[in-house]
Amino acid sequence: MTTAIYENPDLKKERQNCPFNKEEITNFLDGGKEKTKERRELETYILSDKSLRDDVPMEYLSHAEKYAEELRKSCLLMQKLGDSPAGQVQTLRSLMGAGLGSAILKEGNPIALHYVMFIPALMGQGTVDQQAKWLEKAYNLNIIGTYAQTELGHGTFLRGLETKATYDPATKEFVLESPSLTAYKWWPGSLGKTANYAVVMAQLYTKGKCEGIHPFMVQLRDEETHEPLPGIMVGEIGPKLGMNTNDNGYLGFDKVRIPREQLLMKHSQVLEDGTYVKPTNSKLSYATMVFVRVVVCQDVTVNLRKAVTIATRYSCVRRQSELKPGDREPQVMDYQAQQHKLLPPLAATFGFQLAADHLWNLYNTANNSMEQGDMELLPDLHGLSCALKALCSSEAANFVETCRQSCGGHGYMACSNFPRIYGQVTAAITYEGENTVLWLQVARYLVKTRKEKSGGLSVKYLIDEEKGPRTVQTTPEGIVKLYRRVAVGLVDIAIAELENNGRKGYAPHDAWNHAAVHLIKAAQAHARLFVVESFVDSLKGTRLSAPVRAILSQLCELFIIYWILDRSGDFFLCANLKKEDLLQLNSKYVQLLAAIRPQAVNIVDSFDLRDEILGSPLGSWDGNVYQRLFDEAAKSPLNQKNVHESFHKYLKPLLKSNL
Amino acid sequence: MTTAIYENPDLKKERQNCPFNKEEITNFLDGGKEKTKERRELETYILSDKSLRDDVPMEYLSHAEKYAEELRKSCLLMQKLGDSPAGQVQTLRSLMGAGLGSAILKEGNPIALHYVMFIPALMGQGTVDQQAKWLEKAYNLNIIGTYAQTELGHGTFLRGLETKATYDPATKEFVLESPSLTAYKWWPGSLGKTANYAVVMAQLYTKGKCEGIHPFMVQLRDEETHEPLPGIMVGEIGPKLGMNTNDNGYLGFDKVRIPREQLLMKHSQVLEDGTYVKPTNSKLSYATMVFVRVVVCQDVTVNLRKAVTIATRYSCVRRQSELKPGDREPQVMDYQAQQHKLLPPLAATFGFQLAADHLWNLYNTANNSMEQGDMELLPDLHGLSCALKALCSSEAANFVETCRQSCGGHGYMACSNFPRIYGQVTAAITYEGENTVLWLQVARYLVKTRKEKSGGLSVKYLIDEEKGPRTVQTTPEGIVKLYRRVAVGLVDIAIAELENNGRKGYAPHDAWNHAAVHLIKAAQAHARLFVVESFVDSLKGTRLSAPVRAILSQLCELFIIYWILDRSGDFFLCANLKKEDLLQLNSKYVQLLAAIRPQAVNIVDSFDLRDEILGSPLGSWDGNVYQRLFDEAAKSPLNQKNVHESFHKYLKPLLKSNL
Repeated sequence: MTTAIYENPDLKKERQNCPFNKEEITNFLDGGKEKTKERRELETYILSDKSLRDDVPMEYLSHAEKYAEELRKSCLLMQKLGDSPAGQVQTLRSLMGAGLGSAILKEGNPIALHYVMFIPALMGQGTVDQQAKWLEKAYNLNIIGTYAQTELGHGTFLRGLETKATYDPATKEFVLESPSLTAYKWWPGSLGKTANYAVVMAQLYTKGKCEGIHPFMVQLRDEETHEPLPGIMVGEIGPKLGMNTNDNGYLGFDKVRIPREQLLMKHSQVLEDGTYVKPTNSKLSYATMVFVRVVVCQDVTVNLRKAVTIATRYSCVRRQSELKPGDREPQVMDYQAQQHKLLPPLAATFGFQLAADHLWNLYNTANNSMEQGDMELLPDLHGLSCALKALCSSEAANFVETCRQSCGGHGYMACSNFPRIYGQVTAAITYEGENTVLWLQVARYLVKTRKEKSGGLSVKYLIDEEKGPRTVQTTPEGIVKLYRRVAVGLVDIAIAELENNGRKGYAPHDAWNHAAVHLIKAAQAHARLFVVESFVDSLKGTRLSAPVRAILSQLCELFIIYWILDRSGDFFLCANLKKEDLLQLNSKYVQLLAAIRPQAVNIVDSFDLRDEILGSPLGSWDGNVYQRLFDEAAKSPLNQKNVHESFHKYLKPLLKSNL
Repeated sequence: MTTAIYENPDLKKERQNCPFNKEEITNFLDGGKEKTKERRELETYILSDKSLRDDVPMEYLSHAEKYAEELRKSCLLMQKLGDSPAGQVQTLRSLMGAGLGSAILKEGNPIALHYVMFIPALMGQGTVDQQAKWLEKAYNLNIIGTYAQTELGHGTFLRGLETKATYDPATKEFVLESPSLTAYKWWPGSLGKTANYAVVMAQLYTKGKCEGIHPFMVQLRDEETHEPLPGIMVGEIGPKLGMNTNDNGYLGFDKVRIPREQLLMKHSQVLEDGTYVKPTNSKLSYATMVFVRVVVCQDVTVNLRKAVTIATRYSCVRRQSELKPGDREPQVMDYQAQQHKLLPPLAATFGFQLAADHLWNLYNTANNSMEQGDMELLPDLHGLSCALKALCSSEAANFVETCRQSCGGHGYMACSNFPRIYGQVTAAITYEGENTVLWLQVARYLVKTRKEKSGGLSVKYLIDEEKGPRTVQTTPEGIVKLYRRVAVGLVDIAIAELENNGRKGYAPHDAWNHAAVHLIKAAQAHARLFVVESFVDSLKGTRLSAPVRAILSQLCELFIIYWILDRSGDFFLCANLKKEDLLQLNSKYVQLLAAIRPQAVNIVDSFDLRDEILGSPLGSWDGNVYQRLFDEAAKSPLNQKNVHESFHKYLKPLLKSNL
């Protein structure tokens, strides 16, 4: 016997007469029917385990309690790996990502770095012997590792790292040392209280010479007692804007000796007598960075989908104010101002994913050539991955905040899940390459290409210039052309600024620094072009049904026009845009808002995000918003008694004191 | 004997040879020398009390512990009011604001609403008799009140509120009732566990007719036991993005009877027999709203000052990467990209404050006429206050996030204080009139003015159009003209859209809704014009020394150019801007970045924000960033023992399990 399931009548109405097959979009986003099926099975396997649920929501706990609770769940999860219907690798990937994993480990996974950084570092940098020694123990979770690179005083600039590993040929050991407070490792996840091993990046000194940053395998804590080993100063760095149970930590060394064999020596070696042997090929690490940045783009996109789903459903349930005098309060979604807030991020989730997919395909194609020793494509892909990571993270962060604000006061509540989603997305602006640093790297590649008339596939447009009259056409293909003109134009403005600075007598590095504002703009335009082009092209190539193609095409058009309107100055400046063109794009834009509005709920439904993953009373499938908000409040420990003890302790004496 | 005080050598250098008198800027911002002196005395009085400090930083505590701790301190603070050197009113204002108060009550003041809303409501809406009955008890803190308006299902739209107060002439009582779940009051601060009284806004029913929303004085809890009275369902709504100890609560009524005399009857009355007597003048509440919105602007500006101070000092201490090959890592502040992030918000702090001051002066002038019954100026001031509140809150929120991100990973730490500052500033986007709603109200006034050629002082430019050739001049006065043209132009575009919608056959309300995107843009341009104009004009009129005037003029110019570059499309579209003009503004902008850079630390020093108010290891005056970060981490309860108990409970069994 099944009980009737509640469905908010407004949402029910939104879902009637959907002109496209939602499941087709779901499959499209998952990468095929089979993938959707696998994902759902895995979700059911994990989410049906009641021991993985929180009795009291995380937000009510103290910092230490949060850590303990997430550690409990992550240990439980690891024990479920063996029986997972999706296989171990896919399960781990899902549990570490922004989707399924975040439904269980809401504040971060204290053992994530073991899989995300420690094991990959061991595989990428350890010799066969070294892998034999540690990899099985790591896979079996007999040891838990992390990866320690960033220091209190040093982040982006690797050469600036201070931690020292000095080789002592007398004992055939390295001596690890933190020569100052700023040399303390600071930020690595899992480091605070969880990991007992770490791959530590340190300046390698041998025969009196610094050979630069190298990876060392270091045991941090006793395997039995978990006490830090002698000379190891380790602890956690304290609370953050988000991801509070990632257990970010600090680590200092006071003359810690490790055997020579704990330098990970796949690429470079120190011989017994202290002779340093240089690495043969360092380009391979580029490949890892491309991979990691694609993953970052995918993760922020999943998070953005969550935010858009929550805000869209809530906006169709919430009724407010008055449109037509005397009528019932309308759904907030019926306000054009609300559509303007929510439909561009909705469209962006597709644009970002398709661009990340595109990059991933380019990378895989390149990988084949790389295996045959051809590394030519790598700098181009690397540039593209920097650009896309920087763009997706910063745009997604802004969009998430717009979604939150579109939900008014209720979006400000922790249980809406917006604060937590934002905490995760905005972090991606800083990690895996700080965005400003990345933009400037991309700009360097663009300027070089434009000046030297030579560069990879992604920057070909900077070499082969547009021919013919520069008219403005507002078809998707015509709009891509406008983006291309802007990218070229902004690179040229940056180059003019560089040359101008040169004429002023600036040294090259100063000329570069004093053109940074323009260089960053140029790099951003390049990244936008890639997303816009990927979005437009992807819809051409795929085998989609007509109704699905129709709605995705509308979203695509909305999105590429939205970005023009948002930064129309660049288009006036570089793309020959005229006032009439802008007004025409304006009116196309508002038409598209109205056209897409009726399908908003159906589109977010097609993301197929389970309520547990959304984690928000505002966004649940049934739209039972107010009851769920109330039920959440009922969980507050402060609500378990009518009068809190602090009343007797503090407030009552004040009330009776007659100030 | 004084011990030598540490000062980071880079900050020391920044402070050498300051070309202006910092104290002069401090006095300028405080409103005079005397005000600065008073403020400092008050700060010393409050901040030297050790019982008001936290043993363990708030972020480590559980939700309930945070509440108890902040309640403890706010009760202590109230006991200090009587001896305050600044007098009770000024002390209260400082303790409720974003400055001094936030140094003690970091997560919000659980009894703030008593002073900010409850007492003002009583004064503004209670009769003399009613004030006599409750006001003294309120002043003496024998009762603690709040103001309950917003409901779970209703915010912005007052007419939509559901809570009912039905008059029963038989008993001469009102019967309060929450007819549904969505009718529960939801959000009022202090309501959850603290207040025992509230002014409750409810739909007044008498003689079978609804007379609209009215304020009722309702006792919620027993004055001795603090238990909720019969029929009162009250509790807290749970954690939020910020301000977690404001004790926001919910409140439901199950046939709660209160005497007729508890309708606050200064403006409208219900007689014993149930006859409703209408209010004579409702315009007065506009005046309160103007006042409150000026305060919001001031508070977000103080918060922005904190964020800019923290980021600027940190950026001068932090050294990173490489500018000149082989040189020492430069101060992050020396990167143009960093100046581009931090100097516009630095300048904005002045622009916002001067605009808020300007509005406040206009209001006070108007107040004199109002006291003589002339209400004509009020709608204009009301529009301006809506526009300024919406602009300052949304721009400041973005700027705070830019400041945080400019500090990289360390800005993401809770102890940086950025997350908390952001939580407070971004809340102002939603409260006291949700920004989108305000923009549309402002737009209505602009459209009306433009079409009817009649309106107040602030919109005169929409009536008396610019004469002469529309050339572009890049002097400050010339730039103000450009903003004016944009404001006029965007209003005209919105009107054209309205008329176009009308021609399409839309009813007026639909035509309005379908022009919302354009209407909002027009309202924003109007607000920007006011800030820019206030900034430029204020520097003309004030008696400043030449050096101070020079630096403020540079900040002013930077700021007004920054906004043009940020939205240059509007200026191309409406202000006759040409490519050459933009390029010229571009180069002026980067010149100003370089010119202001050397004074950045001196300018933030002149804000005279004590370390306790900044509350951030990154921003402290001495620049001892890394030691302070380390000291903060040492406070973590997780760092009090090397091994957390969760290791034994969860992790060790996993490590030993051989998965």
